[in-house]
Amino acid sequence: MSDERYRQSRALLERAERVVPGGIYGHQNPQFLTRGEYPAFLAEGRGCRVRDVDGNEYIDFICAYGPIVLGYRHPKVEEAADRQRKHADTMNLPGERFVELAERLVALTPGADWALFAKNGSDVCTWALAIARAATHRDVVAMVDGAYHGIHGWCNHLETGFPPSDRAGVRTFTWGDLASLERIFTEERNRIAAVIVTPFRHEAFHDSVMPPPGFLHGVREICDREGAMLVADDVRAGFRLHVGGSTQLWGVTPDLLCYSKAIANGYPLSALLGADALRDAARSVFVTGTFFTQSVPFAASLATLDEIVASGAIERMEAMGKRFCDGLVERAGKCGFDVTISGPPAMPFMTFVSDEGSFDRNRAFAGACARRGVFLHPVHNWFLSAAHREADIDEALEVAAAAFAEVQSRFPA
Amino acid sequence: MSDERYRQSRALLERAERVVPGGIYGHQNPQFLTRGEYPAFLAEGRGCRVRDVDGNEYIDFICAYGPIVLGYRHPKVEEAADRQRKHADTMNLPGERFVELAERLVALTPGADWALFAKNGSDVCTWALAIARAATHRDVVAMVDGAYHGIHGWCNHLETGFPPSDRAGVRTFTWGDLASLERIFTEERNRIAAVIVTPFRHEAFHDSVMPPPGFLHGVREICDREGAMLVADDVRAGFRLHVGGSTQLWGVTPDLLCYSKAIANGYPLSALLGADALRDAARSVFVTGTFFTQSVPFAASLATLDEIVASGAIERMEAMGKRFCDGLVERAGKCGFDVTISGPPAMPFMTFVSDEGSFDRNRAFAGACARRGVFLHPVHNWFLSAAHREADIDEALEVAAAAFAEVQSRFPA
Repeated sequence: MSDERYRQSRALLERAERVVPGGIYGHQNPQFLTRGEYPAFLAEGRGCRVRDVDGNEYIDFICAYGPIVLGYRHPKVEEAADRQRKHADTMNLPGERFVELAERLVALTPGADWALFAKNGSDVCTWALAIARAATHRDVVAMVDGAYHGIHGWCNHLETGFPPSDRAGVRTFTWGDLASLERIFTEERNRIAAVIVTPFRHEAFHDSVMPPPGFLHGVREICDREGAMLVADDVRAGFRLHVGGSTQLWGVTPDLLCYSKAIANGYPLSALLGADALRDAARSVFVTGTFFTQSVPFAASLATLDEIVASGAIERMEAMGKRFCDGLVERAGKCGFDVTISGPPAMPFMTFVSDEGSFDRNRAFAGACARRGVFLHPVHNWFLSAAHREADIDEALEVAAAAFAEVQSRFPA
Repeated sequence: MSDERYRQSRALLERAERVVPGGIYGHQNPQFLTRGEYPAFLAEGRGCRVRDVDGNEYIDFICAYGPIVLGYRHPKVEEAADRQRKHADTMNLPGERFVELAERLVALTPGADWALFAKNGSDVCTWALAIARAATHRDVVAMVDGAYHGIHGWCNHLETGFPPSDRAGVRTFTWGDLASLERIFTEERNRIAAVIVTPFRHEAFHDSVMPPPGFLHGVREICDREGAMLVADDVRAGFRLHVGGSTQLWGVTPDLLCYSKAIANGYPLSALLGADALRDAARSVFVTGTFFTQSVPFAASLATLDEIVASGAIERMEAMGKRFCDGLVERAGKCGFDVTISGPPAMPFMTFVSDEGSFDRNRAFAGACARRGVFLHPVHNWFLSAAHREADIDEALEVAAAAFAEVQSRFPA
């Protein structure tokens, strides 16, 4: 971490390393960012800008890894949350917002007749499979090889600490390859309860991959033919591509739909939506948590969903993302770089063709951007918010141009 | 639900039943409360009082099933949360409060050198076992038969939807019976990674049971001898019995300590604390979540812990709980009832000896109290908060006296 710019971040990280294993764990672990070039702690967020603990400002393209869909501290969301918290939040019983949000989500979402709420994406992905198992009386589930569905034992990427029995009955197939899914169904005849997929492939350390033509439809058809449930893990992409669930972009309706992240613009909430045919199964699975019916995140979510619809947030994010990506390609080209833009414009990612999967230039580029006040990520997809305006995008592109030049000087052809 | 008193609750529940499987799920499911005698939705909380959506007020002895340890909307907690939320909450990186809370918890807790944060008690209980498995290179864990440690597959009480493989390697022993634990260690020689226990037995549908003399010490000694980790699940009891972890009441220090509920007076947060010897193992397990480093709950937690210590909250809850329990015994006796008071005074529970485990009189009693403005629970332990004053207790006891008389008239000897 450069000495002056990140003095407070460095001091806090040293303190954190004494009282937290690894200092900062999980997806925010500094190891994933460019060493020395990023802050380790943030202090402030407003609109599309964040400020670190040393007072450095950034145009932010991470959005807290997804939740901040309308911009930090969006006035309408904060007002709704403030109004609710004066009365009740965590209580013995739910409040009215619990019902209102379930009704709203059901109204917004093709094929959804009910909702359950939790706090983590991991929770609702696991519940979706549990409900599918209960409904089908089958135990096996199918997921895409390498896909990220959270940290529970059945899908934890590192596996350390989770016994192999946690992954018993989890079969993997290849993204975009229907034949590989058919093979599992043949091998596990009448034993597969569910297929879980993200709407597009977006795991870290990879270019994103949109579904090949017919892929999601094909998964849907195989599930229907085989009596398995289709689970859409829309935790990361939800409410950035389509307000009715991201797979609607491809005309596909899942049986179970997992939301979290952007659902309440930063307030902690996740939701599982399901079809009527799965209502009894959902009732039969015991799920609960101390904070699951907290009213303030429900109020924030209602305001967030209202604003997404009313303001055309999804169209704006797409337009601004496209402007950003087009600008990056152009500025990269001026420095002689071929870059790959992947993912939908509202959740783009960029890699250098000449990196050949190493991320070396990407780390240099993202680090050079961070030092200049633009918060990107070297190995994880980015996020637009509805608070990004043309001027923010253009300012970020000026920074990107300087960063490309710096990468060029460090990685001469 | 009585027609006039709960008109709004009933209307909301009818709406909920259309869009949520079962209407209200989990521990707040109306099936656990006395049919027709309780509200289904709450609208307001302040101090030790709550108000339902029909405007009925209650002296509350459930405290949101634990979180509300200082009373609803405690001014110091709300002020700290307000101050934080003006700057940052869910961000790309943690903020300073993350470090401060880890430091504070480590300072407060004998044997704890680090902390990890999550949102659910279920999360941290599961992580504790994962870390113990990673540290010991063993797969089996031991838990008390019938104990509640959350909703993950390895411990979900209903099991529906979770395949038997999720429970592979989970062995159960009998609360209070060291010989039954020794048997597991004999049968699973050098295979047991951890023993998880609550500080006292507090599952629903049972009188609570304090640890028999020497029991927790004995579990600690067996773990030490066998190289297994002792995990204290202090999710429900934490910060009501001892500020350094409930097992300190019995002079026992666990290797891993799970907190949630009362840690932030209603803000969503859980924490896993561990000893230095487990730091590397904790680093090796991949845990993460979108909202795990949210700053507002950390700020609320810091203020909550400060106030618990500064105000003598734990002593006050014990004194008020004792006053309540003594009063209940006396008023029950006046109506000819023998009642069993169980659990620590800050988390008491009462059953009727003549119910012989059926909870019939308890349901009638709790329902009669609810109708008269005192929120107890017929089958789950109760919670005191530091906001309960002598006058509140005495008012609740007058209600209890009337409720005992009503039970007497419905269940004549």
